[in-house]
Amino acid sequence: MLEKFGHGGDLLTAQELYGIPAERFADFSANMNPFGPPAIVGELLRAYADAIGRYPDPAVRGLRRKLAIHHGIREDELLVGNGAAELIDLAVRVLKPAEVVLAQPCFVEYGDAARKSGIPIRTIQLAPAERFKLSAADVERTVRELREAGRQAGDAIWFLGHPNNPTGQLIEPETIRLLVDRGERVLLDEAFMDFVLNATRYSFLGEAARTKGGRLIVIRSMTKFYAIPGIRLGYLVADSATVALLKEQQVPWSVNSLAQSIGEAVLDEEEYARRTMAWLQEERAWLTGQLEELGLIVAEGHVNYVLFRIPLSLGLTAGELQRKLGERGVLIRDASHFEGLDETYCRIAVRFREEHDRLLHNLREVLRERRGSTDAVRVRVPNDAAGKEGESR
Amino acid sequence: MLEKFGHGGDLLTAQELYGIPAERFADFSANMNPFGPPAIVGELLRAYADAIGRYPDPAVRGLRRKLAIHHGIREDELLVGNGAAELIDLAVRVLKPAEVVLAQPCFVEYGDAARKSGIPIRTIQLAPAERFKLSAADVERTVRELREAGRQAGDAIWFLGHPNNPTGQLIEPETIRLLVDRGERVLLDEAFMDFVLNATRYSFLGEAARTKGGRLIVIRSMTKFYAIPGIRLGYLVADSATVALLKEQQVPWSVNSLAQSIGEAVLDEEEYARRTMAWLQEERAWLTGQLEELGLIVAEGHVNYVLFRIPLSLGLTAGELQRKLGERGVLIRDASHFEGLDETYCRIAVRFREEHDRLLHNLREVLRERRGSTDAVRVRVPNDAAGKEGESR
Repeated sequence: MLEKFGHGGDLLTAQELYGIPAERFADFSANMNPFGPPAIVGELLRAYADAIGRYPDPAVRGLRRKLAIHHGIREDELLVGNGAAELIDLAVRVLKPAEVVLAQPCFVEYGDAARKSGIPIRTIQLAPAERFKLSAADVERTVRELREAGRQAGDAIWFLGHPNNPTGQLIEPETIRLLVDRGERVLLDEAFMDFVLNATRYSFLGEAARTKGGRLIVIRSMTKFYAIPGIRLGYLVADSATVALLKEQQVPWSVNSLAQSIGEAVLDEEEYARRTMAWLQEERAWLTGQLEELGLIVAEGHVNYVLFRIPLSLGLTAGELQRKLGERGVLIRDASHFEGLDETYCRIAVRFREEHDRLLHNLREVLRERRGSTDAVRVRVPNDAAGKEGESR
Repeated sequence: MLEKFGHGGDLLTAQELYGIPAERFADFSANMNPFGPPAIVGELLRAYADAIGRYPDPAVRGLRRKLAIHHGIREDELLVGNGAAELIDLAVRVLKPAEVVLAQPCFVEYGDAARKSGIPIRTIQLAPAERFKLSAADVERTVRELREAGRQAGDAIWFLGHPNNPTGQLIEPETIRLLVDRGERVLLDEAFMDFVLNATRYSFLGEAARTKGGRLIVIRSMTKFYAIPGIRLGYLVADSATVALLKEQQVPWSVNSLAQSIGEAVLDEEEYARRTMAWLQEERAWLTGQLEELGLIVAEGHVNYVLFRIPLSLGLTAGELQRKLGERGVLIRDASHFEGLDETYCRIAVRFREEHDRLLHNLREVLRERRGSTDAVRVRVPNDAAGKEGESR
């Protein structure tokens, strides 16, 4: 299985599994901006040989100042972390909710963080027929269940991807407001929000800063949009008291100095951001169309990855498709590892046209092979969410 | 106060405090190898613009393999962390001792980590007259106190710097063995062990790997010896079961990919290591002699920093000396912030001869000024360890 360590983009494991050198894969299994990091990152790296010899600023002053201006919030409403993963872990550990509410399928880290702290998980199963959207009815029903279980408003934390991973769906603002109005504590993971067109219309970042008592927290990642997952950089926005509480429990010098200076620099890269958005709108639409022409069932999405299903009639599981494409040097995510998705779901990153061509060419061949043989054999595709492996972005 | 964020090497704060641009200070307040990082680090940085676009290896396979070979232990006896700070924090949180035993003065992170987890601290006061050495009598008395307080063997964890910061002292091997024989759990912070001549004679790293039940744990830092504190890199050695337990609770992708590849590369830098050791033996001896000639009382040490006292007769506090030198562009640590040290203690890093000359020149001037005025005014130097501020390496 490619997701041996629970995530995409693991080229080392791919090399071991498929016997192809790591650098020769077309990698659709991790959701990274294919433009690679802005050019300024290279310049910073050349200059970093000097800065690496000094401790990072423990208070991350420069980057916090810049992020605060960028988002129009106060510096003390911001906490920078060693990737969004640290902030998810920190929020669960420090805020110690009585329960964590998850809407599945979702990013596996939410549940992992809860399990690490021994916190029970309450699951909402999102419906494929509803395009995996969290509905007002889901919220009302779950709030009722929480109250029946003796949970007061604010005892639990709802961890919600906005947009969600792997579905690419945004949550309706009314649904989020409903949750907050009911007094529930909500943590929105906006790790992929930068890829959403007109993101400010959808983001709750500003609202998180002004919501007292940590009732609304937003986590952002800088590593997806700016293609710098190697260096780890994320941040959290909440009211200043909640930020102070979390900061107190954070590991000293958690954010390395290179991440800090890269974070500061890329925020100025407006042309990079514009180019990325233009490419994404065009390529996602084109790729979606091509996948549908191949008979695959593609979910609507707002981000730089696409969730699709293999029709049952093909009798091909996502795991088989992953292996067959992997052997041809193309990596995709077997999305059946996400709780609440069956063995027909795959997730791929949107990349450049020539890589799409390589993906589509190989996909076409694998599907043709399979179509030739399905008249003889019909593989049963179980709809079984039990025993899912850890997995991530 | 220079130690605003509890550590040395904070040039940003120095700039604010003393009105001198950050790059113009001679910085003796952080204990870094003055050779700067090995040249290979610059080469890696130039190549990193590509690698930064991929996730770090979550299992840190390459570096663990190399460290295991380097130290002659197994890979599953090693956990790599986002700096030693993460590993100290993780050990306290996950192993949840009933108490933490500290021998003061010591690195402030041990106590901070305990306080963050609400774990009580039991303090042994090391005696200046004993050169701040932890004695067998200290151990026997404290073990007796633990038993009287109802603590069984292994309920507490002893956090000990070996060599200790800020004193530079090694603990006698017999004292460590005594602790282990009494069934106590010991965590040795060997962050500065690489600077000790014939370190293998003193290190308990191998013993930590073979001691079952996490009774002996060693933490190492790679950022001091290789002068790369900006990028964060440390590791922990214990029996494989303890390592697995800690790994399970670690934040995913905690160690960024640049730290991993730099870590692998610098382990090969034998010439760099030899040069560092030769410089250190010579310069520490020379610097110590010069400080003594100025009438300062220097503690014996084995590492790349030196603890000294200002004679009471001068009526000059460490805080005043730090300020006076800071205004002249020379940064030293006011060691009175360490619990158990009074206002006469300073700590300085060993650096290069020309920086020593600059330090000594300014030190001489400040002391001459003071000597001129002490006949008139005698400042009372209180021996008060209360209300100490956080502070570190």
